Amino acid sequence: MSAKIKDVAARAGVSTTTVSRVLNGGKYVREDLRIRVLRAIEELGYAPSRIARSLVRNKTNLLGVIVPDLTSSFYSTILSSIEETAAKNGYNLLVCNISEDIDKEYKYLQIFKEMRAEGVIIMHEKMNEEIREFIGRMEIPLIFSSVKPLNQSFISVIVDDYAAAYDATAYLIGLGHQSIGFIGGDMRDVTSGQNRYLGYCNALKDHGIGYIHELVRFGDYKVKSGYDLMGELLRSKRQPTAVFAVSDDMAIGAVNCLADHGLRVPGDISVMGFDGSQMTELVRPRITSMEQPIHRMGKVTVETLLRLIEGDVLKNGDIILDHKLEERESCRKI
Amino acid sequence: MSAKIKDVAARAGVSTTTVSRVLNGGKYVREDLRIRVLRAIEELGYAPSRIARSLVRNKTNLLGVIVPDLTSSFYSTILSSIEETAAKNGYNLLVCNISEDIDKEYKYLQIFKEMRAEGVIIMHEKMNEEIREFIGRMEIPLIFSSVKPLNQSFISVIVDDYAAAYDATAYLIGLGHQSIGFIGGDMRDVTSGQNRYLGYCNALKDHGIGYIHELVRFGDYKVKSGYDLMGELLRSKRQPTAVFAVSDDMAIGAVNCLADHGLRVPGDISVMGFDGSQMTELVRPRITSMEQPIHRMGKVTVETLLRLIEGDVLKNGDIILDHKLEERESCRKI
Repeated sequence: MSAKIKDVAARAGVSTTTVSRVLNGGKYVREDLRIRVLRAIEELGYAPSRIARSLVRNKTNLLGVIVPDLTSSFYSTILSSIEETAAKNGYNLLVCNISEDIDKEYKYLQIFKEMRAEGVIIMHEKMNEEIREFIGRMEIPLIFSSVKPLNQSFISVIVDDYAAAYDATAYLIGLGHQSIGFIGGDMRDVTSGQNRYLGYCNALKDHGIGYIHELVRFGDYKVKSGYDLMGELLRSKRQPTAVFAVSDDMAIGAVNCLADHGLRVPGDISVMGFDGSQMTELVRPRITSMEQPIHRMGKVTVETLLRLIEGDVLKNGDIILDHKLEERESCRKI
Repeated sequence: MSAKIKDVAARAGVSTTTVSRVLNGGKYVREDLRIRVLRAIEELGYAPSRIARSLVRNKTNLLGVIVPDLTSSFYSTILSSIEETAAKNGYNLLVCNISEDIDKEYKYLQIFKEMRAEGVIIMHEKMNEEIREFIGRMEIPLIFSSVKPLNQSFISVIVDDYAAAYDATAYLIGLGHQSIGFIGGDMRDVTSGQNRYLGYCNALKDHGIGYIHELVRFGDYKVKSGYDLMGELLRSKRQPTAVFAVSDDMAIGAVNCLADHGLRVPGDISVMGFDGSQMTELVRPRITSMEQPIHRMGKVTVETLLRLIEGDVLKNGDIILDHKLEERESCRKI
């Protein structure tokens, strides 16, 4: 049986309150008592449990993280960066994979509160009324990472999705493409999906290229959806010479679909991705992508959250990180 | 300010001990007192914090998980299955990504103990004396998943690495290959690396094929290492007609290396993987692989750990799950 705080108090001849004060580095403890307590701690080999200390200090050093899908390369990479930065600052992660299930998200937010998580990171942008209301009264610093809930006022660490998609489309236009297919994301309640679509539309418009409804499809950011939507584009009357997919996973699905149809990338069709996940380097051809700084995004997310936890008052709004075109092998000049 | 246990006690006219007993479903509480406490709880809207309850009950519902590398498709998939099974049973995960850093593993095991994790899952097989000794006195149920530490007595949920590698090699021999390259894993302190190598060696021997030292290389399970080692094999005098890589990531690296040298898979060289990660389906050609049942492995790991937590006494040893050959497009008959 290991020593308890009362054993320490008895041995030092002080009250348990005094022991607590010493443990928590509090002031107002007489120096001779402090020394007696420290000596008793050493003699008894007493180690206060983190959970007991957390009750005293209201410090748990826990951050709750909501991940939409752990098996996605994008989310596992950003989570790995979040974990790294948290660990460096003495924080541990409670990780919850919600598999895009919004009811699970609500349940986990409640658990984070019960566990006294000191901060919460959400990487899922869809919301319902229940979650919105719960977050409003949760009283725990909260930050969104890589996503931004529609019409809400929170702190979000993101790229400028509109500008990034605009730049990606303009890049394809610069390569000589006039017929550019678009494999978009979710348009319901999802700002990134909407902003990437608007970026595509306006880049076409600003370059005097007409919008062709048949060349535009919407999916769910996953490989299978990119594969299926590319198949639809191939069956349409107006075939594109280039396709812009708003996630690397969808771009890989599109490339696989083209390969399975005996078409070469970029020889027959150029394909451009979005995200900068490690997958872009693992497939052939390597995927040219409009990249988010994934590692930096995780780091900035945790650093900002820790400032909130320490009591800094930050205005709600977006923390915008730079996007960057990474030219690889999947797009060509025509 | 929310209600505290002493407010409940005051309102019900009982001691805080009685309130605790009621909350924890303890016996020995008079029925009329129990009703008064429950009524006071309802009237005050009292919700005991999970952390406070955990001190009373010694239940935290936390499982600590050590992951070697979150950005690997294999580990993120098994983690997602572990999370799913834990959540179904009311447990939350403390996830620690150690990036193969054994000092970080030691630190995290200490944190798991301080946080009163009820169980620990380790997916990293290398150990040092410090960790071995700490685990020995940790007094928390512990299980290894997908790995088995060398010469140690623990419970490990794994496949039979020897048999799986033997079967993979025999499959390539059955396709007519006599010159089979081997891209192996880590051989220092790692049973899976050693057993997969022995499976390869003995399959060759049992089929009367001589072992050729030049065709055998060892790496670290990652894509880059598969790429580099395939490059070495291509530069050797005896070129293989097939290569068996002991991870899907290394197999993908090998396929990429061959593509970058203008060689076709399986036209020029067949490549076989190991693991059954989702990556096998995302690349072209799709990778034929000796698969571990990754999802089931996560599920069995948690279910077994929960039995230990509930007090079941299980013998140390291996829980062996079935491996399975998944034929895709990267191997051909010659």
